[in-house]
Amino acid sequence: MLGARGLLRGLRACSSAPRPRRALPARLSVLAALGAAGGERIKVQGWIRSVRSQKEVLFLHVNDGSSLESLQVVADSSLDNGELTFGSSVEVQGQLVQSPSRMQNVELKAEKIEVVGNCDAKNFPLKYKERHPLEYLRQYPHLRCRTNALSSILRIRSEATAAIHSFFKESGFVHIHTPIITSNDCEGAGEIFQIEPSSKINGSDENFFNVPAFLTVSGQLHLEVMSGAFTQVFTFGPTFRAENSQSRRHLAEFYMVEAEISFVENLQDIMQVMEGLFKTATMTVLSNCPEDVELCHKFIAPGQKDRLDHMLKNNFLIISYTEAIEILKKASQNFTFTPEWGADLHTEHEKYLVKHCGNVPVFVINYPLTLKPFYMRDNEDGPQHTVAAVDLLVPGVGELFGGSLREERYHFLEQQLARYLDLRQFGSVPHGGFGMGFERYLQCILGVDNIKDVIPFPRFPHSCLL
Amino acid sequence: MLGARGLLRGLRACSSAPRPRRALPARLSVLAALGAAGGERIKVQGWIRSVRSQKEVLFLHVNDGSSLESLQVVADSSLDNGELTFGSSVEVQGQLVQSPSRMQNVELKAEKIEVVGNCDAKNFPLKYKERHPLEYLRQYPHLRCRTNALSSILRIRSEATAAIHSFFKESGFVHIHTPIITSNDCEGAGEIFQIEPSSKINGSDENFFNVPAFLTVSGQLHLEVMSGAFTQVFTFGPTFRAENSQSRRHLAEFYMVEAEISFVENLQDIMQVMEGLFKTATMTVLSNCPEDVELCHKFIAPGQKDRLDHMLKNNFLIISYTEAIEILKKASQNFTFTPEWGADLHTEHEKYLVKHCGNVPVFVINYPLTLKPFYMRDNEDGPQHTVAAVDLLVPGVGELFGGSLREERYHFLEQQLARYLDLRQFGSVPHGGFGMGFERYLQCILGVDNIKDVIPFPRFPHSCLL
Repeated sequence: MLGARGLLRGLRACSSAPRPRRALPARLSVLAALGAAGGERIKVQGWIRSVRSQKEVLFLHVNDGSSLESLQVVADSSLDNGELTFGSSVEVQGQLVQSPSRMQNVELKAEKIEVVGNCDAKNFPLKYKERHPLEYLRQYPHLRCRTNALSSILRIRSEATAAIHSFFKESGFVHIHTPIITSNDCEGAGEIFQIEPSSKINGSDENFFNVPAFLTVSGQLHLEVMSGAFTQVFTFGPTFRAENSQSRRHLAEFYMVEAEISFVENLQDIMQVMEGLFKTATMTVLSNCPEDVELCHKFIAPGQKDRLDHMLKNNFLIISYTEAIEILKKASQNFTFTPEWGADLHTEHEKYLVKHCGNVPVFVINYPLTLKPFYMRDNEDGPQHTVAAVDLLVPGVGELFGGSLREERYHFLEQQLARYLDLRQFGSVPHGGFGMGFERYLQCILGVDNIKDVIPFPRFPHSCLL
Repeated sequence: MLGARGLLRGLRACSSAPRPRRALPARLSVLAALGAAGGERIKVQGWIRSVRSQKEVLFLHVNDGSSLESLQVVADSSLDNGELTFGSSVEVQGQLVQSPSRMQNVELKAEKIEVVGNCDAKNFPLKYKERHPLEYLRQYPHLRCRTNALSSILRIRSEATAAIHSFFKESGFVHIHTPIITSNDCEGAGEIFQIEPSSKINGSDENFFNVPAFLTVSGQLHLEVMSGAFTQVFTFGPTFRAENSQSRRHLAEFYMVEAEISFVENLQDIMQVMEGLFKTATMTVLSNCPEDVELCHKFIAPGQKDRLDHMLKNNFLIISYTEAIEILKKASQNFTFTPEWGADLHTEHEKYLVKHCGNVPVFVINYPLTLKPFYMRDNEDGPQHTVAAVDLLVPGVGELFGGSLREERYHFLEQQLARYLDLRQFGSVPHGGFGMGFERYLQCILGVDNIKDVIPFPRFPHSCLL
């Protein structure tokens, strides 16, 4: 079912049609019907979300996923043939009229209701009028998208994806499809997946690509290549870790937004883009699907609306790693891992720092050289030797972005990785970049606790449904 | 380097900066500088594309990838320290002035030129003033993006990506990230890749996901799930084939645009979206990066501009498979594969059909049931039994889209795949969808002969560079 604009465009574009489309009644999405003035004769198709049969009148709510709100259908009860059950799909023709109830603006006075596909209530894992826990729904990746919670989350995910693309496009970044299959195993970022043609996995020694090939853990190297031509580039695609982690913050397959910028002069250049991305994308999502966000903030994460407003209203803070360690050392709280200069920040530390900073996102900059990969830019400071790295910590989630200036100086890198060197020989420039976990971003703005609930088909150890 | 809008937004958003940004001269992209009025004091950063030194005056062309056109820099020859070579990166400060030449509107009168990174001309695989063949450039995936041809193609790819997302968003489709890793090996679509954690690939019998896992060959099944909730959905992501093919039309990793639409009534519903997508996206690309497209149409594929205009101006044609076979049988041309009802169309047949139809894209519909996968909708016709499948053939490329109505009728599917059945039990609806190879689309509109030249990092048998 096409939205009105798509339909018109389609008809204009393809007038060599073998049979003309019926002129009336117009096929409308539920979203379009809800926004119409009333009076039109229309046809709506979707799934029954509720049925209420009174003596003479029948009320249906029909939802087609175009919006959280369903369209109320009012019909003479003679139209109920007993097949109008929760979950079944229907096509309803009739007239849109002003609704007498203040629950909705318009309702559809049905002239004809056709059941398109039955739904056997007994076998259907979703039960009428029940609010199913998210854990329960995870068993049914092919049906959970028919609930209010998951359909709202996935519509928001779609909006957020578009908002992130728009932000970069309007800022002059070129979008790059960095490869999924790579012959480089990155910085040994934990456990990775290796690939082979399925027919060879138990035989032959020869590699399909002549070299061992892996699933990417980051598009950074490939973006660095492209920032050497386009100055500002970004990618937004799947990345993979083969870690045996069952946490509510990890998946084997997840999406990363990564950016790389040439000619940056300091970390501030990178942090501006990070903060701009977070705030602009979030504001776009809030204004494009307010009802869906409201549902999450009301039923899934009460209080999250205020927490998010607070993040958007305030400037993000900046502290150095050294300051962070001092704050943690002065804390009255007992940590499982004692904070110490030179040691990594753990989740408990990140949480404390964000709280200490008034629940505003906080950039932690200038990490110990020994903690970070070789390609990060040496600050040449002392006695505590640091690199120009930055992490953004956000309330509820912890680390959301990680970034750095990259070491562009040939002699600093000379004794490091040979592959990396070839990029620095020809017109090398200072550059830097960052990555943002897209699912963590969604968790952060929506307050969804488990990462498996913000991705359509979660993949994690022991689970690859569908 | 941020575009002007991004910079302003960044500054507004992040005023908690540790050090204030210098107010002047403003850092501009080459694109922004070329569009400026003249008179401004600015700073531009990029790579030297040409150097011309006269007795008293030095001319540079500086390109930062924001546009095909470079910015002409005019300097007193005393500013030439001998390091201003082709390929090196520079930062130039000065005043934008009206150019006396009619080659450009403005030029930059340099006050200061700083070499940011040297480029050793002897080792640099790109040679000054040479136009390198695309085959030669493929050896240097990390440098070819610095040529006019590849940078234009990749900017167009970025624009086309945005245009495709916009088309679907404006038509009311929800974007779905269908999974890359899947436990279902699809319709045995040729050879596929299997994945395992790299530490296990030579050991252990246990699977990471408990079941064998593969790289997706299509997001169709997952989109069908989602079309059962959102009615109109699309995905745009990487798909994989482990086929040992060295053709100019195949890659091991390529991008597919796939859509699925519920409540479709006939193939026309699907074809409208296909034609709308092709024409709308292409028109957007043509209007957003005319110089880049012109370069391709001028130097890479002469004549392609007219061929593309012809495709856009005309309605796509529709013929049945049966008609197609009749046309082929009547052809004076000798085919390697004799056309016969029930046999697949080969590339030679596709080319002939497109030519026969006046080099307009042509939809071929209603294929023999025996040729197509089980999930395509039975037309219940006879004596020649067909299914509601559609392929779109385009000049130069052949098959660009493939689609079909899906079989939604439970009893037609009952003896087929068990996994598929569960989708049809609960409110099943007539639906259909299609897939478009994104690289083939780029080949089609640009006239680029080899698929390896329209993707940033091509992966194919024996090659996985970077």
